[in-house]
Amino acid sequence: MADGILVVGSVAFDDLETPHGVREGALGGSANYFSASASLFAPIRLVAVVGDDFPEAHLEALEARGVDLKGLERVEGPTFRWKGRYAAEDADAETLDTQLNVFEHFEPKIPADWRSTPIVFLGNIHPRLQLDVLDQIDAPRLVGADTMNFWIDGEREALLEVLARIDLLVINETEARQLAGDDNIFKAADAVRAMGPKILIVKRGAYGALLFHPEGTFFVPAVPLREVIDPTGAGDTFAAGVMGSLAADGAVDLPALRRAVLTGTVMASFACQGFSLDKVMTVERAHVEARLEELLILIRP
Amino acid sequence: MADGILVVGSVAFDDLETPHGVREGALGGSANYFSASASLFAPIRLVAVVGDDFPEAHLEALEARGVDLKGLERVEGPTFRWKGRYAAEDADAETLDTQLNVFEHFEPKIPADWRSTPIVFLGNIHPRLQLDVLDQIDAPRLVGADTMNFWIDGEREALLEVLARIDLLVINETEARQLAGDDNIFKAADAVRAMGPKILIVKRGAYGALLFHPEGTFFVPAVPLREVIDPTGAGDTFAAGVMGSLAADGAVDLPALRRAVLTGTVMASFACQGFSLDKVMTVERAHVEARLEELLILIRP
Repeated sequence: MADGILVVGSVAFDDLETPHGVREGALGGSANYFSASASLFAPIRLVAVVGDDFPEAHLEALEARGVDLKGLERVEGPTFRWKGRYAAEDADAETLDTQLNVFEHFEPKIPADWRSTPIVFLGNIHPRLQLDVLDQIDAPRLVGADTMNFWIDGEREALLEVLARIDLLVINETEARQLAGDDNIFKAADAVRAMGPKILIVKRGAYGALLFHPEGTFFVPAVPLREVIDPTGAGDTFAAGVMGSLAADGAVDLPALRRAVLTGTVMASFACQGFSLDKVMTVERAHVEARLEELLILIRP
Repeated sequence: MADGILVVGSVAFDDLETPHGVREGALGGSANYFSASASLFAPIRLVAVVGDDFPEAHLEALEARGVDLKGLERVEGPTFRWKGRYAAEDADAETLDTQLNVFEHFEPKIPADWRSTPIVFLGNIHPRLQLDVLDQIDAPRLVGADTMNFWIDGEREALLEVLARIDLLVINETEARQLAGDDNIFKAADAVRAMGPKILIVKRGAYGALLFHPEGTFFVPAVPLREVIDPTGAGDTFAAGVMGSLAADGAVDLPALRRAVLTGTVMASFACQGFSLDKVMTVERAHVEARLEELLILIRP
């Protein structure tokens, strides 16, 4: 049985526009994507908040996949809502609107019997909230985190406190450069790892990912996709594959991390193949194994 | 003994500006970079033109590496000169000036006893000149070519004639998309291969390269560089590693092409580590083998 993973982050509605269409009020949020994906590999404990407009059916679907919702607060008012547009398949998201709603006063509360969860993932939320979570848990075996340009710019001090207390950071290439103040990604990686996390995984979107670990490095390209329907949540789904694979493996050495990055790469490709969680919620372990085999054929020298 | 490679292209002076400094009148040109690099792996036959200002010492250095200069015309007047600037280590070149000089009336003339050279590489020159070369040679075992946005835009018809007559195309990702009229690189690759070349290698700069072959595909990341001194000629040096490796292998199947793309990747990294040909001219086979081993450690799953 894989170790459990506690994840804290957002559960949201997304209004999406991509070259493949428009979706209003689609299921989204970093912890939602993470839970839906990582639950393929390990029992998930979700800490988040939703409003009274969030569909019970989706929560039941998460539970059916092995996501424990005891840490999910349901409060009065509307759920966090994000509106974004992708001008092209390979374009970054342009944020059109953000309504924090019930997320504005979110204070993560970890249930007492979850405090010793062996693996913790801090989704992309305010670094002060990430620190609040770390203060509520007992020395986990592995703590991973994500962050974004907004916190790197505006909450650097709190973010540096987070970095000093985590084992693994998953971050975009642009954000790694911004955090380190160095355009060279290999020098930037050294600088970021000197801030705390021994393990750094740099996401390069359609160009794959780089893993930096004390025992060595590993580079993997993305799964080739002839169509990117909606890249929303691909980064969270990638992180879910990484953390889920590590939980299933029970080790955090270089071979386990190579498998984790490959698994994250495969999971991210599923996320891109449907709007919202459409595709991710239908993925089974056998699909992951089959696509891992396809990826290995592409990269084996 | 590896098969010989006939290469046609430019030999030039480059005026360079990169974040690491300025060089005036540096040795350059696609066929110059190609010859200096590919000569590590196979005997090279160079077809090009230089003016009376080109340094004899460099030609002797090429000869010492096994480059046959019987096809190198020396004519009165100044050598082709290119002036370019890189605003950042990862920026594309900005062309500041181009003086064709003796290259303006260049008509490649293949020496009679070179017409049966088994491997031919058509460097990035006017597609009409590439066709002239193809008309002068007897069915080679393998014909590779490079091209650029300028010819894709302005000489499409002639370029399509070239593509119908070659086996292998090495091209930048942006140019592959432009040639195919498709932003998705995997669909673009299909479209380009339908134009003629069974083998397509897409260069992604710092993100590596993609190989498309009838038997399968292969993706490789670039060698990590903590400093890019001067990326001029990296593409030509990459192509030289590919063609040189194939010449040395004597096969053009998928395993040979995987090795070729890895070798090209390694050679391109050397090109970036010095201004002009500074580093490439000092590279020996043992350096290539050592760096290949380093690259394999980074990518082996």
